[in-house]
Amino acid sequence: LDKITQYRQLFDEAIKTKKYGHSPKELYQPIQYIMSLGGKRMRPICLLIACDLFESDVKAALPAALAVEIFHNFTLIHDDIMDKAPLRRNKLTVHEKWNENIAILSGDVMLVKAYNELCQSNASYLSRLLNVFNETAAQVCEGQQFDMNFETQNNVSINQYIEMITLKTAVLLGCSLKMGAIIGGATETEAEKLYSFGKHVGIAFQLQDDILDVYAETEKFGKQRGGDIIANKKTYLLLKAIELANDHVDLKNELNTWLNSENYNPEEKVNAVTAIYNNLEVKEYAKNEMQYHYNIALNHLKEVKAKDSIKMLLMELTDSLMVRES
Amino acid sequence: LDKITQYRQLFDEAIKTKKYGHSPKELYQPIQYIMSLGGKRMRPICLLIACDLFESDVKAALPAALAVEIFHNFTLIHDDIMDKAPLRRNKLTVHEKWNENIAILSGDVMLVKAYNELCQSNASYLSRLLNVFNETAAQVCEGQQFDMNFETQNNVSINQYIEMITLKTAVLLGCSLKMGAIIGGATETEAEKLYSFGKHVGIAFQLQDDILDVYAETEKFGKQRGGDIIANKKTYLLLKAIELANDHVDLKNELNTWLNSENYNPEEKVNAVTAIYNNLEVKEYAKNEMQYHYNIALNHLKEVKAKDSIKMLLMELTDSLMVRES
Repeated sequence: LDKITQYRQLFDEAIKTKKYGHSPKELYQPIQYIMSLGGKRMRPICLLIACDLFESDVKAALPAALAVEIFHNFTLIHDDIMDKAPLRRNKLTVHEKWNENIAILSGDVMLVKAYNELCQSNASYLSRLLNVFNETAAQVCEGQQFDMNFETQNNVSINQYIEMITLKTAVLLGCSLKMGAIIGGATETEAEKLYSFGKHVGIAFQLQDDILDVYAETEKFGKQRGGDIIANKKTYLLLKAIELANDHVDLKNELNTWLNSENYNPEEKVNAVTAIYNNLEVKEYAKNEMQYHYNIALNHLKEVKAKDSIKMLLMELTDSLMVRES
Repeated sequence: LDKITQYRQLFDEAIKTKKYGHSPKELYQPIQYIMSLGGKRMRPICLLIACDLFESDVKAALPAALAVEIFHNFTLIHDDIMDKAPLRRNKLTVHEKWNENIAILSGDVMLVKAYNELCQSNASYLSRLLNVFNETAAQVCEGQQFDMNFETQNNVSINQYIEMITLKTAVLLGCSLKMGAIIGGATETEAEKLYSFGKHVGIAFQLQDDILDVYAETEKFGKQRGGDIIANKKTYLLLKAIELANDHVDLKNELNTWLNSENYNPEEKVNAVTAIYNNLEVKEYAKNEMQYHYNIALNHLKEVKAKDSIKMLLMELTDSLMVRES
């Protein structure tokens, strides 16, 4: 059994036996439900590995690992309400399966339970964990608000977009890695390097998601191709295309026509916009940006003074998540 | 200047100068807005006084005092969404002034900021504060869910109702007092007595609110008389009336008619149901229950080993809040 699988099993066991509360059931059943839908558990597993970089017995990191996963799933429940999303991991979202009020409130109690779990960590470093977790949790909310703002905002710049995904998704991976390092006994300097590693890996992952939405083989990706295009979602690809199309008046007009059209064949729109993307080579820009952040991440990891074998393991894990694209 | 006024000013100053964040403004303006709507600030002021019972320099208690007030206002924002309430303290609710998504998300970030504020407390007792705060925050969510469940639930018992208001409102006052005591240096035993004092005062306050909704002089109370009656809200008064009406078939039928009628003159319904309450003397039952909990509270306070002058002060404050009724 390789180590990553071992950590995944350790965490899955902790999740499976975790009790959040039982009464009222309307409050606690949605928590069991969303936590059992699965997912890659990337954040908690990275947290455990980050701990292992400095201390092989990672059990002390389980409360923090549970905390980040509970927090992440809290954000999914509330984001799904805001986005009016019917499905999550191919199952009904909480607000669809129950209702919006229950989704708001069980999300709230999950945020409390995330803190409660984190507070089970050793008092000797609890303050340090809370510092990074508090800051990160607020940033994730800020990122979600920027994301919603972008829906109606013109002239979103690439820089603003990178800042938004940094807040909305990347800092939580950074926070997970930093917390693991702290629990393992790392100094603030080493822990901060892991934070930067996680943050830039997180940015790279989101850029990859943007690319995969358009360019993935459908079966591999597991969701409908072109969802972002249909929704006019301001991804890196679209923002770059808008920027580059300024020098190509015909493409600019065509793109604007699709962005403003209300009655269209979805497949036709996806194909047409993809063709514009291809024409402007935005996929290559996106891959370069992705690689740029992934390289920064790896440089931070290299600087970490810790067990080389575990640094390799961490790199293997992130590499394995970076190669989903064909 | 009396001491309560002094503490109120100390806290108001802290609230006024508090910055929660600035960008994105859609996230942070609602926080400034709701925190500036005022209110009695009962929880934070009780927290400061509870600290003063054991330690006269209460500045160390300000972060925790801010935390409970921020937490309380977070619950107001989310409760108002769930209740579809248009007004709060005679001003537009956050979801009406902005929108539901912003209300969900700025509420979320307030919960994070409440924890962030609490974490500014001294590390020597931070774990103890977090223990009681984590438990209380979850209970408040549970109470809100029970309250929503009661809307469609038949046969809600008086005991279930007391349990619901205990969770939804009373434990936060208990938590505030306990946290103040802990910060003041109280032992767990003394802090727990203050928790019980606060919890039972909180129950008494809610029962008083139930009574005032029906029996207050409108100008004093500041909101429309009979709101609970119009909404068929299952208050102590209504639940007691339903219980007692079992022995009075005519009143039972009349009450049921009003509870089930959809087209009615609001004033007529309020007057008719109030007459039924008077007939069954439910106000007296409610006042007895209220006094019962207030007496338990005072007995707990008497047992606290602390400065008598400050115990008197705490009693004066709660007394002054108990006599709003005519």
